[in-house]
Amino acid sequence: MQPAIGQLAANTDAITDQLGAAIDAGADIIVLPELATSGYMLESLDEARLSSLTSQADEFARWATALGDAIAVIGFCELSGDGLLYNSAALLDSTGVRTVYRKTHLWDREKLIFTAGSSLPTVTATRHGQLAVMICYDIDFAEVTRRVAVGGAELIAAPVNWPLAPRPNGERAGEQITAMSTARTNRVAIAVCDRTGDERGQRWTTGTAIIDPDGWVVASAGESVGMAVADLDLTKTRDKTLTDFADVLADRRIDLY
Amino acid sequence: MQPAIGQLAANTDAITDQLGAAIDAGADIIVLPELATSGYMLESLDEARLSSLTSQADEFARWATALGDAIAVIGFCELSGDGLLYNSAALLDSTGVRTVYRKTHLWDREKLIFTAGSSLPTVTATRHGQLAVMICYDIDFAEVTRRVAVGGAELIAAPVNWPLAPRPNGERAGEQITAMSTARTNRVAIAVCDRTGDERGQRWTTGTAIIDPDGWVVASAGESVGMAVADLDLTKTRDKTLTDFADVLADRRIDLY
Repeated sequence: MQPAIGQLAANTDAITDQLGAAIDAGADIIVLPELATSGYMLESLDEARLSSLTSQADEFARWATALGDAIAVIGFCELSGDGLLYNSAALLDSTGVRTVYRKTHLWDREKLIFTAGSSLPTVTATRHGQLAVMICYDIDFAEVTRRVAVGGAELIAAPVNWPLAPRPNGERAGEQITAMSTARTNRVAIAVCDRTGDERGQRWTTGTAIIDPDGWVVASAGESVGMAVADLDLTKTRDKTLTDFADVLADRRIDLY
Repeated sequence: MQPAIGQLAANTDAITDQLGAAIDAGADIIVLPELATSGYMLESLDEARLSSLTSQADEFARWATALGDAIAVIGFCELSGDGLLYNSAALLDSTGVRTVYRKTHLWDREKLIFTAGSSLPTVTATRHGQLAVMICYDIDFAEVTRRVAVGGAELIAAPVNWPLAPRPNGERAGEQITAMSTARTNRVAIAVCDRTGDERGQRWTTGTAIIDPDGWVVASAGESVGMAVADLDLTKTRDKTLTDFADVLADRRIDLY
């Protein structure tokens, strides 16, 4: 997606369109970007508040109704009951909002606008597998990714806005390298949805990727608005063995750490 | 290096040669492969014992004497005082063996021969920086890499024997991807020394790499015996900030994990 900064109505329409396109494509699990409702380069608390939603907003009920058998993870600028703003992601199925996760590791200037979440990501049983929702910079913290893998997560669904950074020719973005490493060292699948477009001078990695539990990117999106689509059998993530005598979770030395 | 299976004398000679070549090249910190003294594809405890060394062996004193101002990390098959075998690495300076680390995360069939170490890697102050020694599969465990980064490690020095595995065209080996991710998410440097050659049908990734604290490979070795050499200012690893408001260690939510 290419969210428009501060344009709540336009962004919720775009989310409706993208969800519809993914449902039409037969998706079981749909992941949209971080802060898809508001855009990212928010300059002030006031501006952020103007494009915020509560998790009880009608939009979520409307999106849920359209999902049918699918589930969706949508990043949004959340206004809480006590007036604080969170960088959040809602997990929806046809019954409505199942969970709301508030980003626990805020990146850079997000700290000037958002309150950090006080609860780590959990693992939610859905009709399409065991899901953990994380947002962007969270993935850089192996403390969290390991914890959800141990907790039975089969897929980490991660709305992100990865800011474009210089990298050597031919290399993947560092954030994507970390996502690949996270997948292989935990034998979990990861679906990262990045954004695109130029927003107040900021460009993006456009690193949308679906990563299998061996750590390889099996689908990605380009720089234009569009989807990455892959079929993954998430039940395969339950097998943590690499060889007859190696197992990525059993081989942890929990007697030592 | 290309250690020869079970050929202790030939391997110690080769280590002497490689140390000499690295010292001649002006190296401050030298890393050699895992099990450089014995080779890797050991078939039995008896065979492993025949090419083992104690950490008091004369060879270490001889190598230490040759080091001058340099330090070296050498993987070896260690025979302990109680007759057990460990997959170990010695950190040497001109005064002799400074530390011996015994691999805590044994890979696959190593479990049939070696006893797992009972102590996690520590951080050792050397004349060339704060070093943590890990061996091969250890690096896949972020619990350990994070711990040494928090403990002040500037360089992770890692003897490895990475077995060659299939990977998609154009991708780096998974183990190298994890090393790159480890470097960037902790802002530490990593020097991995792999081996080469065909040993009892096993081939190797030949993934020798020096990785800077941004997570990029700045030097690597080919499939032949030879060195990867890079100049890194390890003091730069002390700065964990990524932006004005982002810091890879301070941003951990240690209130939550």
